[in-house]
Amino acid sequence: MTQPAPGDLASAFSGARVIITGGLGFIGSNLARRLAGLGAEVTAIDSLIPEYGGNLFNVDDIAGRIRVNISDVRDMHALRYLVQGGDYLFNLAGQTSHLDSMNDPQTDLEINGTAQLSLLETCRKHAPGIRIVFASTRQIYGKPDYLPVDEKHLLRPVDVNGINKMAGEWYHILYNNVYGLKAAALRLTNTYGPRMRVKDARQTFLGIWIKMVLEGTPIEVWGGEQLRDFTYVDDCVEAMLLAAVTPAMEGQALNIGGDGVISLKDLAEMLVRVAGTGTAAIKPFPAERKRIDIGDYYADDSRLRALTGWTPTVSMEEGLRRTVAYYRENLPRYL
Amino acid sequence: MTQPAPGDLASAFSGARVIITGGLGFIGSNLARRLAGLGAEVTAIDSLIPEYGGNLFNVDDIAGRIRVNISDVRDMHALRYLVQGGDYLFNLAGQTSHLDSMNDPQTDLEINGTAQLSLLETCRKHAPGIRIVFASTRQIYGKPDYLPVDEKHLLRPVDVNGINKMAGEWYHILYNNVYGLKAAALRLTNTYGPRMRVKDARQTFLGIWIKMVLEGTPIEVWGGEQLRDFTYVDDCVEAMLLAAVTPAMEGQALNIGGDGVISLKDLAEMLVRVAGTGTAAIKPFPAERKRIDIGDYYADDSRLRALTGWTPTVSMEEGLRRTVAYYRENLPRYL
Repeated sequence: MTQPAPGDLASAFSGARVIITGGLGFIGSNLARRLAGLGAEVTAIDSLIPEYGGNLFNVDDIAGRIRVNISDVRDMHALRYLVQGGDYLFNLAGQTSHLDSMNDPQTDLEINGTAQLSLLETCRKHAPGIRIVFASTRQIYGKPDYLPVDEKHLLRPVDVNGINKMAGEWYHILYNNVYGLKAAALRLTNTYGPRMRVKDARQTFLGIWIKMVLEGTPIEVWGGEQLRDFTYVDDCVEAMLLAAVTPAMEGQALNIGGDGVISLKDLAEMLVRVAGTGTAAIKPFPAERKRIDIGDYYADDSRLRALTGWTPTVSMEEGLRRTVAYYRENLPRYL
Repeated sequence: MTQPAPGDLASAFSGARVIITGGLGFIGSNLARRLAGLGAEVTAIDSLIPEYGGNLFNVDDIAGRIRVNISDVRDMHALRYLVQGGDYLFNLAGQTSHLDSMNDPQTDLEINGTAQLSLLETCRKHAPGIRIVFASTRQIYGKPDYLPVDEKHLLRPVDVNGINKMAGEWYHILYNNVYGLKAAALRLTNTYGPRMRVKDARQTFLGIWIKMVLEGTPIEVWGGEQLRDFTYVDDCVEAMLLAAVTPAMEGQALNIGGDGVISLKDLAEMLVRVAGTGTAAIKPFPAERKRIDIGDYYADDSRLRALTGWTPTVSMEEGLRRTVAYYRENLPRYL
């Protein structure tokens, strides 16, 4: 396996023109910060739709070092201009709420399907040399047949969002295979850390848990026995950078996991302990969530590790500590 | 397994209100004829887009016995009216050309993705009791890892059409699982028979082969060693009817195959022999097709047979004989 040597990231991204869709969102803004640190010329594209993850405060500390462009991934005219001359595209913009996708399936399809296809057509025609990393999701597996879930597992999405993300992922793989665009996808599991959406559970339940702990509201744990894996955002960002510069990743759609597996009950207790505030209470599963819940999930991400050399470096406890510290300081900017 | 008893089809469909999207197309019109024979009130919906399979001559002989409504599956207002009060929906309308899907991916997505989602939303809201059978395709498997391909095989579509059909299939399964709509999907392989499109290879290469044999033009066989399975259209229609009335099919997406496996070279020779006219010549694969070709494919359809009791009744040779006889009489109506 060809793995990037230490220092490859700096040489790959220093001076590179990098476009990030969803660049004011949780992962996108952390990626923008890391890339700016590596000397890249970053353009963060975001629609700032209030229900999604974009937040200008996410790039407040790097405001002079990146270019911000407010536009929607459905705006193909803007994207056509913005991707031209790009070296890398981190394609993170998406509708991520599972319940929203059921209540308004066509909007989910527009953003996660139609716009992705348009973006790839635009890259093919106007930026054929660009290297793309697409943020896919473990949601496309649905309820696992076996654990840990590897990439041989059938895709059986359990909501409209999962179906459209599956299509979006496959457009990327197809354009890689057929048109020679260089594209890879990472199937993200629960990613967490500073700059995540915490005002509600639209991005992940862990966001609102952090808010509740800091505000002293009891956390409601639905069920509690479900096992999950988590990726600290800095580890996720590193995986994306490695995916972008690793030729063996082209045409791959691979899982990313994290540092071990934890039950939601244990996670809630760890969070309360780390924060030193709040309490956790186990509650029965709400019916509306239950019918699209997938039970236990954790990834086998050995393919990603083997191809890129990636390994998570931040433990769950340390990640929670950093996240809580961030929101203890900045919570009002996320409400 | 609960299998329909003989006579169940007549009792299920006699007097039933049945909607067929793509109802003037190849399979849709054969289905309409069979359903009219069973005493159903059939509405055949078709856009008659010239590049697709719809042809008014396909229902010429049953013109007074079915209702024809010219409208596109993207016309949600028309569909909303047309599906109300329906007992069964055979959802066959689609863009089927693989090359067209690469040249105009957004139109393929509109028809095979967006419109399917709208149709299911419409059924959920305005015809919640309707039973749906969706025409999916073996194309969504891509290049097989093993043969015969069963439903445990990963879906790895190799063109935009395959990705969108995969999404369209999953919308149906999802709406079955989450909203209690009753929907099943059949993953069709090469279907052939009277009323198929023969003026070009947009629907299947076998169509244009039949035209060439009848016109005395040498058939060009690309490659020739590739193995394929074929379903005679009457057998396909029977499988769709059985799928619609078999409760165990709800939420299933199952393969349909046919009577054995044949190489394209042997098929061409059989066709020339059956027709008594024409010749066949082996040609190298055109590059544009090669990059999206999937090699050998044939289905394991034992799940469908077990759940519905379906079995193919028309051999390849007999099917070709009937097809050639049909086009010998009617070819000008298909040019």
